[in-house]
Amino acid sequence: MWNISLVGFGNVAQGLARILADKRERLAAKYGFEYRITSVVTARRGCLVNDRGIDPEMLLEAMERDGGLWGCEGAMVVDPLAAIKSSHTDILVETTPTSLERGEPGLTHIRTALKAKKHVVTSNKGPLVRALSELAALAQGSGVAFRYEGVIMSGTPALNLVRETLAGCDIGHVQGIVNGTTNFILTEMEKGKSYEDALAEAQRLGYAEADPTADVEGWDAAVKACIMAVLFMDATLELEDVERTGITDVTPENIQTALSRGKRIKLVAEVYRERGKVRAMVAPVAVPLSRPLAGVMGAMNAITYTTDHLGDITIVGPGAGRIETGQALLSDLLAIHRGYANGDHPARMPF
Amino acid sequence: MWNISLVGFGNVAQGLARILADKRERLAAKYGFEYRITSVVTARRGCLVNDRGIDPEMLLEAMERDGGLWGCEGAMVVDPLAAIKSSHTDILVETTPTSLERGEPGLTHIRTALKAKKHVVTSNKGPLVRALSELAALAQGSGVAFRYEGVIMSGTPALNLVRETLAGCDIGHVQGIVNGTTNFILTEMEKGKSYEDALAEAQRLGYAEADPTADVEGWDAAVKACIMAVLFMDATLELEDVERTGITDVTPENIQTALSRGKRIKLVAEVYRERGKVRAMVAPVAVPLSRPLAGVMGAMNAITYTTDHLGDITIVGPGAGRIETGQALLSDLLAIHRGYANGDHPARMPF
Repeated sequence: MWNISLVGFGNVAQGLARILADKRERLAAKYGFEYRITSVVTARRGCLVNDRGIDPEMLLEAMERDGGLWGCEGAMVVDPLAAIKSSHTDILVETTPTSLERGEPGLTHIRTALKAKKHVVTSNKGPLVRALSELAALAQGSGVAFRYEGVIMSGTPALNLVRETLAGCDIGHVQGIVNGTTNFILTEMEKGKSYEDALAEAQRLGYAEADPTADVEGWDAAVKACIMAVLFMDATLELEDVERTGITDVTPENIQTALSRGKRIKLVAEVYRERGKVRAMVAPVAVPLSRPLAGVMGAMNAITYTTDHLGDITIVGPGAGRIETGQALLSDLLAIHRGYANGDHPARMPF
Repeated sequence: MWNISLVGFGNVAQGLARILADKRERLAAKYGFEYRITSVVTARRGCLVNDRGIDPEMLLEAMERDGGLWGCEGAMVVDPLAAIKSSHTDILVETTPTSLERGEPGLTHIRTALKAKKHVVTSNKGPLVRALSELAALAQGSGVAFRYEGVIMSGTPALNLVRETLAGCDIGHVQGIVNGTTNFILTEMEKGKSYEDALAEAQRLGYAEADPTADVEGWDAAVKACIMAVLFMDATLELEDVERTGITDVTPENIQTALSRGKRIKLVAEVYRERGKVRAMVAPVAVPLSRPLAGVMGAMNAITYTTDHLGDITIVGPGAGRIETGQALLSDLLAIHRGYANGDHPARMPF
C-alpha cells in the first residue's frame, strides 16, 4: 500500500486522480499496486489530509462542483513541506505550476521530499531544467526514486523508452517535435491559413495560451532539449545555451516551397554532438517527407533517436493533455512499485 | 556476475556476442552488469564449455575464420540440455533456428531451463507461437524471468514499450507493419518495379529467402499477430485462427490507385476486438497517408497501439538484423539484471 501526497491539484493531478479512481481494482489485480491518497495540498484550491486515505472520486467531484476543495469535510490550511515530510507520505506527486526561471515552488517541494527519503514523481519541467543533476544525486543519496516521464511528451514514453527499453544502446543524436502548439499552427498554415489565423485557432482550441511566447518562440521546446541533453547524452546544458529560433517568421510561402521540394517545415528540437561537445538547438527545419517526423501532424509529438545498435527509432504520440499526463504520472508510480528506480544505475539502488 | 549459456550461435547470437565484447566495460560501469559466457552449444557449428568464461571476441574470430567453433581449444560435443541445467548457467540465451510447426528444438530447451529455474532470453518465435502461455506459467512457477523482446521487431522495443513504459494503459487495438521483407517489396513496387522484380531485389539484398513464402504469404506477420494478441490483449489465438492474405496478388496498379486516393498499401497485421472477442488478421490494407504507418518505407517496421489513456502511440524502427536482434537480447539481459521479470505481475515475482 503506497501512501501518496499530491502537491498541486490542477489539470494534470486531476487526470491522475481520474485514472486512479477508475482503475483501482484493475491496478491492484494486474500490478498488485494499491494506493492511499493521504494528502492533497494546493496554494489556492484548499487542502485535505487524511491518513486513512482520501477518495479521488470525491476530490474530482469537489473540483467540478466548487472549483476547489474548501467545501470538503476536513478541509484546512496545510504547509506543503509538512505534508511532504509526514510519516504518512511514501511518494510525493508534484504538479504545482511550473516556473522556468527559478523552478519554484516545485524545486523546494522535490528537494524536501528527496531529503526526507520520499520517492518523487513529477511532470513539472521548472525544477528539472534548473536542478536535474542535483535532484538526481539527492535521490541517489537517499536511495529513493525520482521520476518524471511526463516532462517531455506527457504519457508518450519518450523518456523511459530510452532509459528502460533501449537499455544498452547509446544515443548519438536526438531530433524531436516536442511542442504540440507550434506543430498544430504549422499544420494549419499548410492548409492555407496565415500564421495569425492559425495561432488564433490554436488559442480557440486551448492549445495555445493567451500569451503564446513560450510556445511560438521555442522556449518550451528548448527546455525539453535541455532535459533530453542530460537524460540521453549525459550533458548539462543551460536553457540559455540552446540556439533557439521560433516559428513567428515562418510564412505559408516557406511551407509551400519546402513541400514542392519534398520537405515539410517542422519546429525541431535537436541534441547532437559537435567536435566532442553536446549542443542543442530549436529551429524550424525542412524535414524530408521520407522521415517519420515529417508525417507528424496537428498537436501530435514525436522523437527520433539515432542509436548505435538500431539506427533510428521513432516514437509518435500525444505531447499534452489531462489524462495523457496523468498516465505519465501513473507509469512512474507503477515503476516505483516495481522497484524500478532512476534509470542509469539501478543495480546500485537499494530496490 | 551472470553466467550465460548460449544455445544456438547463428547471426543473432553473434550479434549479441559482438555487443557484449565491445561494451563489456560500458555495461559494467553504466548498469553494473557483468557477465561470463560459460557455454556455447550448437548443433552444427561445434560447442565450448568453460566455467571461467569464454571470450566472445574469440568466438567471433573462430566463426569468421572457420565458420564454426571446432578449431577452438576445448571444443567438444555437448548435450544442450546438460549445458542448460548446469550449475554454471544462470541465463539461457536461446537462438536455435525457429520452427513454426512444432517450435523445436527451442521449445524443449526453454522448457528445460525454466523447470531448472534458469532465466531465459530468446528471439525464437516458434516456441512462443506454440506454447507462450505454458512457458509464461512455467517461468512464474519457477520464479524466473522469461523474456523475448526480439520476436516482434528485433531490438525496436515494441513489446517492452507496452509492458513496461505504457504500464497502466489498456490496449484496445494494435496495427503494425511487422514484416520488413514485404514492406520493402511494396516500397520498390511503388517506385515502378513489378512484384517479381521487387522480390528478386529483396532476395539479392538478403531481405527475402530463396523460398519467400513465409514472408510474402503473411505467415511471419501472422505469427507476430498471435504473439501480440497474447501479450497486449490477453487472448490466446492459434496461428490458424489468423485471417491471412499475403501480398502476391498486389499489383503496381493497386498501389498507384491507392496513392491517387491519398492512401498507401501496406501489409498490416491487426489485432482487434469484435463482439467481445479478440481477433487477428494480416492483409494488404490501403492506409491513409495521414497515419504514421503509411510513412514507413523500405525494410522498416512500425506498430500503432490504440490505448485508453493516450490514444494512438506509434513506434518505428528496424525489424531485423544481426546487431539489432542482438540488442533485443541485450535489453532482456539488462532487464533481468535490474530484477525485472515477466511484465504483468512483477509485484508477485521474487525479484
